[in-house]
Amino acid sequence: MKQVSSLLTDLYQLTMLQGYVEQSMDDIAVFEFFARKLPRGRNFFMAAGLAQVVDYLETLAFDQNDLDYLADDDRFHPDFLDYLADLRFTGDVHAMAEGTIFFPDEPIIRITAPISQAQLVESRVINVLQFQTIIASKAARMTLVAPEKLLVDFGLRRAHGAEAGLFAARASYLAGFSGTSTVLAGKMYGVPVFGTMAHSFIQAHDSETLAFEHFAESQPDNVVLLVDTYDTEKGAEKVVALAPRLAEKGITIKGVRLDSGDMILHSKNVRRILDQGGLTDVSILTSGNLDEYKLAEFGRAGAPVDGFGVGTRMTTSADAPYLDCAYKLVEYAGIARRKRSEGKATWPGRKQVFRSFDQRGRMCGDILTLESDELTGIPLVEQVMKQGKRIVGPPDIKKSREYAFSQLAGLPDYLTQLNKSDKYPVEISRSLVELAQKVDLRSSAEP
Amino acid sequence: MKQVSSLLTDLYQLTMLQGYVEQSMDDIAVFEFFARKLPRGRNFFMAAGLAQVVDYLETLAFDQNDLDYLADDDRFHPDFLDYLADLRFTGDVHAMAEGTIFFPDEPIIRITAPISQAQLVESRVINVLQFQTIIASKAARMTLVAPEKLLVDFGLRRAHGAEAGLFAARASYLAGFSGTSTVLAGKMYGVPVFGTMAHSFIQAHDSETLAFEHFAESQPDNVVLLVDTYDTEKGAEKVVALAPRLAEKGITIKGVRLDSGDMILHSKNVRRILDQGGLTDVSILTSGNLDEYKLAEFGRAGAPVDGFGVGTRMTTSADAPYLDCAYKLVEYAGIARRKRSEGKATWPGRKQVFRSFDQRGRMCGDILTLESDELTGIPLVEQVMKQGKRIVGPPDIKKSREYAFSQLAGLPDYLTQLNKSDKYPVEISRSLVELAQKVDLRSSAEP
Repeated sequence: MKQVSSLLTDLYQLTMLQGYVEQSMDDIAVFEFFARKLPRGRNFFMAAGLAQVVDYLETLAFDQNDLDYLADDDRFHPDFLDYLADLRFTGDVHAMAEGTIFFPDEPIIRITAPISQAQLVESRVINVLQFQTIIASKAARMTLVAPEKLLVDFGLRRAHGAEAGLFAARASYLAGFSGTSTVLAGKMYGVPVFGTMAHSFIQAHDSETLAFEHFAESQPDNVVLLVDTYDTEKGAEKVVALAPRLAEKGITIKGVRLDSGDMILHSKNVRRILDQGGLTDVSILTSGNLDEYKLAEFGRAGAPVDGFGVGTRMTTSADAPYLDCAYKLVEYAGIARRKRSEGKATWPGRKQVFRSFDQRGRMCGDILTLESDELTGIPLVEQVMKQGKRIVGPPDIKKSREYAFSQLAGLPDYLTQLNKSDKYPVEISRSLVELAQKVDLRSSAEP
Repeated sequence: MKQVSSLLTDLYQLTMLQGYVEQSMDDIAVFEFFARKLPRGRNFFMAAGLAQVVDYLETLAFDQNDLDYLADDDRFHPDFLDYLADLRFTGDVHAMAEGTIFFPDEPIIRITAPISQAQLVESRVINVLQFQTIIASKAARMTLVAPEKLLVDFGLRRAHGAEAGLFAARASYLAGFSGTSTVLAGKMYGVPVFGTMAHSFIQAHDSETLAFEHFAESQPDNVVLLVDTYDTEKGAEKVVALAPRLAEKGITIKGVRLDSGDMILHSKNVRRILDQGGLTDVSILTSGNLDEYKLAEFGRAGAPVDGFGVGTRMTTSADAPYLDCAYKLVEYAGIARRKRSEGKATWPGRKQVFRSFDQRGRMCGDILTLESDELTGIPLVEQVMKQGKRIVGPPDIKKSREYAFSQLAGLPDYLTQLNKSDKYPVEISRSLVELAQKVDLRSSAEP
């Protein structure tokens, strides 16, 4: 299914494309996408977004509406618009599976196609991969910090537009969250959908107890009551008082949610009130300004919280809202290429990453090398599209999520910590270093 | 035109809605959207996104596909789905015009509708307004720092998905940018579209000069050449050498772009090389990790840069990637309401903001008060929808942009600085304080 117009690209992709077409430059280009460095405080990345990239490439086409818009711009020539009308993606794609842990300089996708196609798709490929990857990488930290807890994405409202909300729901689920509050993410991606109630529901009723009662009657199988609208502890006492009345109607209260104040303190008070009222099975959920550091704090304080609604800071990856990443030409017309701009030099050629594991199955080191090399370790980059068609089955988010869990289980302990560790070794192979030198010699010889 | 499924909402909106429908609670609710506080370092907000909110409300409807999805979820009853099938937005909307400068606690939108409708739209209304507002507020700072320069949004690739790229292009244009590189933002919102060339275009050619030449021949009216792929100064020298050959073909070089290294130093070197080569009319554009602080640095250093391509840090509002904001019930069934949760208490009732100006036309203070009050100053909140239909003309981004310019021109000097200023006075009226006390007394009396 086509999600977005093919005009969702930078203008220069189209003007360069016209340049290539006019010069009949249509040799095979190889581009790779990789991250340049880890954000402050982060120890690894988790790859995400490949399924949407494959969808995009499989359905890439300019419709008449797009072409009519371009026809009004005299930058574009009629012959070129005819060319665009027939353009489809016919290339090969190699990638790391979604959920794979990776590190700077390691390519997570390689696109091999006539240069016109491989260049055109740059903007959207980065747009999809960088965001889902930064979110999965952030959410994975919360999964590691609170592995036994229910983690639910509550972030739609503060996400950067519609797709950000959907992608964040998907990427966080992939990285170990239990689900999302965003209904459309359930429909589009099969992410389990969770929900409670808002303060306005309480405020619209003349009494808090009445609001609880109405909600419970309407959602008898999913009674999670928000208790902090006026006073958290008093709210919990009202829940205790209400429970027997609901029990008579066959309704069990599942949980309460706290959303403000000192939630560690309140959660302990509320647990005591609930337990003393015989509601030992009622769980406590919290929400409001949560991130991995807050979750760790709850853990250290022994706060009796069973689940967390995590919003803004995860959905926007607030401490690292973008990936320092690039999609770079590494080969054209059979010749390896690299960019040498100051501070932005890249590795040339088609690459592979081999990963080694210790006896306990923990990752212990990567080698970044050329695709043609065969080194020891597990190769992480695999072919997923051939001549424009996927050669893997349709995406299965639940399988990807299981794979992501196995990747997190394979992290060495020093990478599972919230504090920064630079110890994980990523070696650059000799063949790659030699190729880079060869490429530099050639471009230095340019007239 | 409907942009997005009505299922783009939080599950709790639908479960609460079912609760309201079952209890036949359908009195008029009034919700207001406002920001709680300014992010660190910011002095004001600029309202943006209203046009998309009005579009959303005018076209709100659940299609059969949405309803079929919900029908599979036993949380929802058949009667409720019938209700949803007929649901349309029939309420009133009051708002600040896009481009208006505003401050914490001041509502930029008020939605007055049967509670089912006013509640349901919360998630998407916040999603649209909070992101465009945070971007416009960030971009306005760059407009203020570099008023004479060409500022172009280059941020699509690092934006949080498709809509974030489009909204960022729109909101930054509104706030004074000259345009965007995102083609679809031109088509959808009428934002002027700009573009140059990428490093890969250079790398795909055997020589940098040949790449320049091919690009110039393909885009003779828009020759902006990227000179830093291998060596910035040498790249500029090649431009000088090429210029006479292009001139013979009637092609004028419009500009060069720098994207790496010490760009203040390089811009000075490149300016000298171009001037000595007789290319005094060729402008210099830079891009790469720019934000308002970098633009100010370029200004202080006297860097001869004519335009900036601003990407990631603007598009993600990297230093403040979200707005601390809320959409809160302020009245239901004719009775004013407020939330009193710790640290999150809100002002009750339908509100208006009156703004005063000094003799030079500069803003000098706001009063936040009840809508029913008539105070001195300009009222900022105006009606834009009545009974579900817009009562203003279709959105005109260019007019909104002119209004935004006039708003920036009306800022007192201390608010135009990049450093933090807390001096702008926003007074809370006595009538509003009294209403809040009355509301608290009432809810304390709750049994």
